[in-house]
Amino acid sequence: MKKLDHVGIAVKDLKEAISVFETILNTKVYKEEDVPEQQVKTVFLQAGESKIELLHALSDESAIAKFLNKKGEGIHHLAFEVDDIFAEIKRLQALGYELINSEPRKGADDKWIAFLHPKNTHGVLIEICQKIR
Amino acid sequence: MKKLDHVGIAVKDLKEAISVFETILNTKVYKEEDVPEQQVKTVFLQAGESKIELLHALSDESAIAKFLNKKGEGIHHLAFEVDDIFAEIKRLQALGYELINSEPRKGADDKWIAFLHPKNTHGVLIEICQKIR
Repeated sequence: MKKLDHVGIAVKDLKEAISVFETILNTKVYKEEDVPEQQVKTVFLQAGESKIELLHALSDESAIAKFLNKKGEGIHHLAFEVDDIFAEIKRLQALGYELINSEPRKGADDKWIAFLHPKNTHGVLIEICQKIR
Repeated sequence: MKKLDHVGIAVKDLKEAISVFETILNTKVYKEEDVPEQQVKTVFLQAGESKIELLHALSDESAIAKFLNKKGEGIHHLAFEVDDIFAEIKRLQALGYELINSEPRKGADDKWIAFLHPKNTHGVLIEICQKIR
């Protein structure tokens, strides 16, 4: 694992959330990107080498909409960057960890991503990600 | 704001959580520290320039015990490092943000820390921190 790449935060009122996080972090949003396959809009703020990723549902079918309905606004996942996501998925599976995505899929921010099943990770939804070269 | 300093995760079974996060992050715990005033044991893993801080209640009076009873295991807070926590508290208060600690208190890892009131931060408990020089 190279670093904590980003923290994903599910928000309802995106405009208001951008204002709050820009104010508290004292920095401006540097990128917005829609991920149509996930029906989510992503908005990024830099925090050192890590990023805060605000997640806004584009439809009721989005996993983020379901998360918001069930748990309300708040931290959705932690994403750790790895050098080789394919090798990392195999390593974790061999150790008995279940992955939601046993094959990486394309996420926002030019990344391959895969989520671990949260049942064994102490209430934390964990993503591993790798830059698409 | 300099960087995302750490992510605090409240856990019940500390030994098991250490094993899980050491395995997934593929790195070893590098520090354990009790904070008696908060009745909490903290355990740190490095993730790039940020840290994962596992939080374990040392008594039922601990805020972490109350969090675990109410919400279960999971992410407790995000901590952002700042250069001057006193100036930062004043800046945020002037912008209308309420702080749980209007005066910094000593936290783990040789830090001055202060928490923002979570009512206006989209379900995220935010700490600001500064290294004690």
